[in-house]
Amino acid sequence: MIAQTPEPTYYAVIFTSVRTEGDNGYAAASERMVELAKQQDGFLGVESAREELGIKVSYWRDLDSIKRWKKNAEHAAVREKGRSEWYKAFKTRIAKVERDYGFEK
Amino acid sequence: MIAQTPEPTYYAVIFTSVRTEGDNGYAAASERMVELAKQQDGFLGVESAREELGIKVSYWRDLDSIKRWKKNAEHAAVREKGRSEWYKAFKTRIAKVERDYGFEK
Repeated sequence: MIAQTPEPTYYAVIFTSVRTEGDNGYAAASERMVELAKQQDGFLGVESAREELGIKVSYWRDLDSIKRWKKNAEHAAVREKGRSEWYKAFKTRIAKVERDYGFEK
Repeated sequence: MIAQTPEPTYYAVIFTSVRTEGDNGYAAASERMVELAKQQDGFLGVESAREELGIKVSYWRDLDSIKRWKKNAEHAAVREKGRSEWYKAFKTRIAKVERDYGFEK
């Protein structure tokens, strides 16, 4: 659930979105994208939650692995459907994780 | 809902957590912390969602404003309750947002 990321530094892609009404193939495509992301070189993990707002944070080794994932053809096609069908609005932020700490009971 | 952040660079604090059972004063404290954070110098916005996993991303102008917020006495006291009562596990990641882009219908 909480991604098991390595020691910093590494990168986070914070994707925040508001969905349109209805599923319209979103759930299946979203699941497929996570499966596909897991196969990419440099992928470190993903965390997501949705209420009114959806937040998905994927973690990557470096900017190059993020760029390659963005260019993946299947991923690019699905992103187009995101703009045309699934999202009212979204914001993507690319951030370098400089420090982290955690807690577990 | 989606935080209206300025042009990068700025900072994100990505807080991912798994809750214990029951509210135990969590909801009220969480709301109070957001109100208090909004009053801090350097605070830029906050986004949150929870399903099994909770993700809260707060945005800050720089590392100094994050450090001051961490030292805020009321915030520090509430964080202690987080460890003792509200969270089974959490991870905090401090990340510098280098680039962002968005979409709105």
